[in-house]
Amino acid sequence: MNILIYNEYRHERNPDERAHAVYPNGIHTAIADFLREDPELHVRTVTLDTVEEITADVLKETDVIIWWGHMNHDDVPDAVAERVQEAVLNGMGAVFLHSAHKSKPFMRLMGTSCSLIWRESDDMERIWVAAPYHPIAAGLDRYFETRADETYGEPFGIPTPDETVFIGWFSGGEVFRSGCTWQRGWGRVFYFQPGHETYPIFYDPNVQTVIRNAVRWAAPASRIEDCMDCPCLPKAHKGAL
Amino acid sequence: MNILIYNEYRHERNPDERAHAVYPNGIHTAIADFLREDPELHVRTVTLDTVEEITADVLKETDVIIWWGHMNHDDVPDAVAERVQEAVLNGMGAVFLHSAHKSKPFMRLMGTSCSLIWRESDDMERIWVAAPYHPIAAGLDRYFETRADETYGEPFGIPTPDETVFIGWFSGGEVFRSGCTWQRGWGRVFYFQPGHETYPIFYDPNVQTVIRNAVRWAAPASRIEDCMDCPCLPKAHKGAL
Amino acid sequence: MNILIYNEYRHERNPDERAHAVYPNGIHTAIADFLREDPELHVRTVTLDTVEEITADVLKETDVIIWWGHMNHDDVPDAVAERVQEAVLNGMGAVFLHSAHKSKPFMRLMGTSCSLIWRESDDMERIWVAAPYHPIAAGLDRYFETRADETYGEPFGIPTPDETVFIGWFSGGEVFRSGCTWQRGWGRVFYFQPGHETYPIFYDPNVQTVIRNAVRWAAPASRIEDCMDCPCLPKAHKGAL
Amino acid sequence: MNILIYNEYRHERNPDERAHAVYPNGIHTAIADFLREDPELHVRTVTLDTVEEITADVLKETDVIIWWGHMNHDDVPDAVAERVQEAVLNGMGAVFLHSAHKSKPFMRLMGTSCSLIWRESDDMERIWVAAPYHPIAAGLDRYFETRADETYGEPFGIPTPDETVFIGWFSGGEVFRSGCTWQRGWGRVFYFQPGHETYPIFYDPNVQTVIRNAVRWAAPASRIEDCMDCPCLPKAHKGAL
Repeated sequence: MNILIYNEYRHERNPDERAHAVYPNGIHTAIADFLREDPELHVRTVTLDTVEEITADVLKETDVIIWWGHMNHDDVPDAVAERVQEAVLNGMGAVFLHSAHKSKPFMRLMGTSCSLIWRESDDMERIWVAAPYHPIAAGLDRYFETRADETYGEPFGIPTPDETVFIGWFSGGEVFRSGCTWQRGWGRVFYFQPGHETYPIFYDPNVQTVIRNAVRWAAPASRIEDCMDCPCLPKAHKGAL
Repeated sequence: MNILIYNEYRHERNPDERAHAVYPNGIHTAIADFLREDPELHVRTVTLDTVEEITADVLKETDVIIWWGHMNHDDVPDAVAERVQEAVLNGMGAVFLHSAHKSKPFMRLMGTSCSLIWRESDDMERIWVAAPYHPIAAGLDRYFETRADETYGEPFGIPTPDETVFIGWFSGGEVFRSGCTWQRGWGRVFYFQPGHETYPIFYDPNVQTVIRNAVRWAAPASRIEDCMDCPCLPKAHKGAL
Repeated sequence: MNILIYNEYRHERNPDERAHAVYPNGIHTAIADFLREDPELHVRTVTLDTVEEITADVLKETDVIIWWGHMNHDDVPDAVAERVQEAVLNGMGAVFLHSAHKSKPFMRLMGTSCSLIWRESDDMERIWVAAPYHPIAAGLDRYFETRADETYGEPFGIPTPDETVFIGWFSGGEVFRSGCTWQRGWGRVFYFQPGHETYPIFYDPNVQTVIRNAVRWAAPASRIEDCMDCPCLPKAHKGAL
Repeated sequence: MNILIYNEYRHERNPDERAHAVYPNGIHTAIADFLREDPELHVRTVTLDTVEEITADVLKETDVIIWWGHMNHDDVPDAVAERVQEAVLNGMGAVFLHSAHKSKPFMRLMGTSCSLIWRESDDMERIWVAAPYHPIAAGLDRYFETRADETYGEPFGIPTPDETVFIGWFSGGEVFRSGCTWQRGWGRVFYFQPGHETYPIFYDPNVQTVIRNAVRWAAPASRIEDCMDCPCLPKAHKGAL
């Protein structure tokens, strides 16, 4: 299974930012490290500096893309965002993490504002499993906690999710649909709230369990060559898609 | 508009219970009182003692039923529960309050366990508006609070709601989908979490706003005589439903 | 994987009915025969005469139940229907075929009328794949046809399906959501329209593909002991469900 | 209520095209004519030639936009499409007709391919009411027919609709979800399949009923100034949205 991790990788390279200390080699490396413990996963990473490596050919070979971005969403070229969107519609899975709620590919797939309220105040988040039967929740207790993270709150400007797997409780008083799934074309999309760049969230075993589960869940059962096409078909035409 | 309020009315008549002091004339009376301030609403109440008054004819004249029950769900006759379910499927609106999550009519309409976790510990609930565009949320701020109520927590064993209007944050650490809607047949169903019998929840202006909005929202635009019927129709048959 | 097939088995035993010639050993046997070609499936059958064999213990060992019933829905004891419903909520998969739309377990799980319009006029049904990415549609062309079957038509009185996998086109002019899925508690439910007792539908390779796919799709990833329970939990209580 | 009708208006001005004879003054005029019979509706039209008239200010005053486009989707500026999308998210209703399934605003709101299969072969379409309780279906029989129209068929590459109001049956053998609704932000979206430029579909009384109903249904109950914003809020901040 081929996993492609995109990380903006700007905060972590700035020695003046707290993120530099938490993720010295970047969030993408932290995620890649624990995913690579699974020998069935072939993991590749790409950053904003090398974002053009996300070609149509690379996406065709990718089973699941993981996306983390924050301050530089606008610097991702529209053509790349469109390629990612189409690859999802053609069957590639996609996992969007934390501030990727405002990334171009996620916003294109949702069609909505993807807005929320937020605050950086070291709130603890308790993440409740609202859909305990869901494969993405496998191996978790009723809830797990991240000691401190950026707070995200409702209303979250998304289309009604197919399933709300997690709902987050923040010590400062907010709630958030912290884990949501959507089918989009042939592809499966998962959004997961935790993971601000200044907190060691991606070293957390429960967060790693969720991401591992999500990768398995989002992997395509089948793919299509070009779902954008509108074929003109004669009467009683069959033929595989 | 005809509103029918069903209340079990057992806790409040027991002088040894706290509910007696909070709702001396019963929860149904408290709800009826504020609804009756709207001259367009004709409000009738019924309790477990008079539950047989919920006849098919009465339901046919009812636009929206409001249901509160708790310890005596099982004493509601199956025939009554079935009548309420069918009236909803034929177009009557239904608002289920608090512990009515385990009432017979609600469970019949959902088809699921309707289970949850709970605790009586005087937790404050902060109820967030997750769907601010929804008519049931009209006139509310980003959130409102009930100073103390019974705690309900996820997972809530319901079918995925059409819309999750409210999500509750409890001071003890739980979250709950505190306001949910479902279309069932011709009828609209709303579940609303606040309202344990020992707290003055139904005197709260925000709670009253929600219930008033919900009644308006759930009122039928159209009704059918008997949606249970499966007509055998000849080819090219039209005819109104 | 343990499959339990329930078939009413009344039409087929009546020598005066056409069903007797089409399914001399019953619909359950026809379905069991092609499922047993897969060595991973352990298939057991039960009929209305032996319906009490559907005990809680048997259901606990069953991964997916397949249900066919028609004229004798009412003769299935309520206790059996309730057991099946709860087993689904606890994780067992369920595939409801054709006239099982009015069976007790299906109606309990849906909570709605499950009504439709119908006609017996040897219409051809062309079943279109509306969700080609769905595992239940794997291996099918754009559509397949059953040469003649009972006609079912909209409106179909169901809650909005999670996914509408198939939409049927009938030569007499009707349409029908012929393949629908719902998550209910821990369990997955699939309804499939084809299969009147007087047509050799269950010998059709495409129909067999759908049922085989559905059985795989509905098999539980995880189960719970008793989802009906509402535990009272202290603050900050974790623990697996 | 302010209605804005956008029509590409290219086919109908070409004297060599059949559309010229059917809609000599354009599809927008045909739609405007029957809507203007309702004195409560203030109707304005705009075409591709004047598409820049669709400014943010105009959209702010518009309750519902109706969109018809076909061969020149790409000539609608991205900025206009984005304005329409954001206006919907802020509360404006939107009705997309026929070939507008591939228009920029619709595709942006859906996030998916919006693909389908098609054919021009004068097929009759019988449009079944699948959600007879829905306000958009008010006043219709079980079905209505358009004597001839372009055929659209499944799979339709859309996110699962909130409600599938109509399902179309085509005499050539196709089916299509011909009437679908989605909530997107504060706005309501309705897609309606009939209406190829070479057929007098928009003179059909049933089609007019649907569009009239849809306009009423899509009209905003409330609007927001800018739903794209992500406010940073202090703890315990309330304040209206």
